[in-house]
Amino acid sequence: MHKGRLEAFSDGVIAIIITIMVLEMKVPHGTDFASLQPLLPVFLSYVLSFVYVGIYWNNHHHLFQAVKHVKGAVLWANLHLLFWLSLFPFVTGWMGENHFAPLTVALYGGVLIMAAVAYTILVRSLLACHEADSALAKAIGPDTKGWVSLGIYALGIPLACWFPWVSVGLYSCVAVLWLVPDRRIEKVLVA
Amino acid sequence: MHKGRLEAFSDGVIAIIITIMVLEMKVPHGTDFASLQPLLPVFLSYVLSFVYVGIYWNNHHHLFQAVKHVKGAVLWANLHLLFWLSLFPFVTGWMGENHFAPLTVALYGGVLIMAAVAYTILVRSLLACHEADSALAKAIGPDTKGWVSLGIYALGIPLACWFPWVSVGLYSCVAVLWLVPDRRIEKVLVA
Amino acid sequence: MHKGRLEAFSDGVIAIIITIMVLEMKVPHGTDFASLQPLLPVFLSYVLSFVYVGIYWNNHHHLFQAVKHVKGAVLWANLHLLFWLSLFPFVTGWMGENHFAPLTVALYGGVLIMAAVAYTILVRSLLACHEADSALAKAIGPDTKGWVSLGIYALGIPLACWFPWVSVGLYSCVAVLWLVPDRRIEKVLVA
Amino acid sequence: MHKGRLEAFSDGVIAIIITIMVLEMKVPHGTDFASLQPLLPVFLSYVLSFVYVGIYWNNHHHLFQAVKHVKGAVLWANLHLLFWLSLFPFVTGWMGENHFAPLTVALYGGVLIMAAVAYTILVRSLLACHEADSALAKAIGPDTKGWVSLGIYALGIPLACWFPWVSVGLYSCVAVLWLVPDRRIEKVLVA
Repeated sequence: MHKGRLEAFSDGVIAIIITIMVLEMKVPHGTDFASLQPLLPVFLSYVLSFVYVGIYWNNHHHLFQAVKHVKGAVLWANLHLLFWLSLFPFVTGWMGENHFAPLTVALYGGVLIMAAVAYTILVRSLLACHEADSALAKAIGPDTKGWVSLGIYALGIPLACWFPWVSVGLYSCVAVLWLVPDRRIEKVLVA
Repeated sequence: MHKGRLEAFSDGVIAIIITIMVLEMKVPHGTDFASLQPLLPVFLSYVLSFVYVGIYWNNHHHLFQAVKHVKGAVLWANLHLLFWLSLFPFVTGWMGENHFAPLTVALYGGVLIMAAVAYTILVRSLLACHEADSALAKAIGPDTKGWVSLGIYALGIPLACWFPWVSVGLYSCVAVLWLVPDRRIEKVLVA
Repeated sequence: MHKGRLEAFSDGVIAIIITIMVLEMKVPHGTDFASLQPLLPVFLSYVLSFVYVGIYWNNHHHLFQAVKHVKGAVLWANLHLLFWLSLFPFVTGWMGENHFAPLTVALYGGVLIMAAVAYTILVRSLLACHEADSALAKAIGPDTKGWVSLGIYALGIPLACWFPWVSVGLYSCVAVLWLVPDRRIEKVLVA
Repeated sequence: MHKGRLEAFSDGVIAIIITIMVLEMKVPHGTDFASLQPLLPVFLSYVLSFVYVGIYWNNHHHLFQAVKHVKGAVLWANLHLLFWLSLFPFVTGWMGENHFAPLTVALYGGVLIMAAVAYTILVRSLLACHEADSALAKAIGPDTKGWVSLGIYALGIPLACWFPWVSVGLYSCVAVLWLVPDRRIEKVLVA
């Protein structure tokens, strides 16, 4: 099976997710600075989620460049990832509109960790239909960054109940960690 | 005629349908677990519909891999399928927000059955412009799974008036039945 | 210049237009037939617009199959068409929610006629960068169907002020007229 | 790395932005001309933004035709541009619904200038991974039009506090300036 339509469909879904999140920023009725102020936390949570969805698109893009072929299981692993990404607009809106209240930050982290798990499953399902010495297998390697991210999320979610801003800080650190696209794959593809 | 743009357009429409369904999950005003609770049925109906739309995308993907060329009638059969799929966000929201009330479950089943009929029409219109011994014709075969699904829907819709949860269970069974992508086509393409 | 990205962008915009129209069908609060009844005119106007946008996509698809190359002017003629198509969700919602009131039907016709004019301009801009004996020029021919449609719209708009349902009937006739995709182009491409 | 998916993803995001802006034009409850009248400023701001987003798509299209390959930094420069474009629906709605009030026009200009800066950064990041005598480098040249636009925005934003309509006029002038697609790139590609 070709990977073209899987890429096109994923691009479409991710493009829509990253764009409809902005609809949570409701146009205010006033026309002064004061009427914009309540939107600041909504805007901040939008920026964080935009960066996260951007990271997933970038990594998805890098990952599939090393992919040769896909199977039925990969299609579902990919849809599973898209499912968790599709919850970003909801948790982003809830967190932003409630000024980063504890439970909202914890749920946001819950979606982050599920998306990360789904991405890991997608990678495993791809490895399962490539040989052990394929470019993809070499490119993934031990996946340290992935495990570190999962660890930080697992720390941030319970912390959110007492120190939500610390959790937001931790989530942002993971984002910065991933802002650099996956060099491993670029290196292996060039070599 | 090439099938490329038909695939791209279908991918776009299905990507939007699967994503805007999440907009029915309105961000709650409270910040505790109690405020999330009324969203549970909305979330459940979202999950069911996400899986269904995912199945249609997967099967569409598999189907068109065996397709060699398309005609004008195929374009309209495809748009007819997309029309019924486009009603998913509406019936999903209605069913979820009303906690799976009888009529909402029956209408949901009505859209399911119409989408299944539309898919069957699409398959017939494709067979009509391929030879009887084409890879597509071999891949479709007697289409038992399709007929079983139609039968279960036809059973679930009247049942919903008395036992809506039984109908939801039946719809979910059909979804599980289809979660495995259409092996027939994979087999024939490989052979 | 290649036509690929113009096709992809148009597919994306048309896919979104055809799908977000369904958002005008607001999920009702009741769970009986009576609560669905006020949605009937909204549903009818949705069906009409779905068919119209589907026709535009089909014709766009057929048209660009005969196109060899595009220029800057074509990009803008295409965006101009997409602009008028983007007003479909608004006029569809207004007409449906107000049960086909005179002015709403007239405005709907106004958008129909502007979209038809924009399509004609797009065809002219394409002819301008192809030779007089190109497949495209042969395929377009005298464009009788286009002129008839414009005439019917021009009749339907003023009529809507007194007999809105007659106008809706006229608009539907034009839709039926176009349901058959543009055979001219298929014929010329095959020949 | 190939540029295909970057183009496809950008097309998707821009297609959604240009289309969801129309959702800010809320369907009015009345059915006479008077009920349409309050929508006029919303419609005008929609037209202006449609033209602007159309210009960005056109220029993006032209720019990437001259691009041979992309790197990780280009992906992020492109997402940065899409971020500012994604704020168009919000500022368009705010400006239109408040009849071009001073602060709303200034903020609209702020998003315009940030999008222009982001586009400039994208161009620089592309030049950084092409040689000094590449078709792209020749096509960009001194980029006078880009600098003039930035200057006019910088003038229009403070002016908006006293004469919002003058600022809207200035923004419109920049749009007209860019309506002609980037001839530089077409010329170099042909030569």
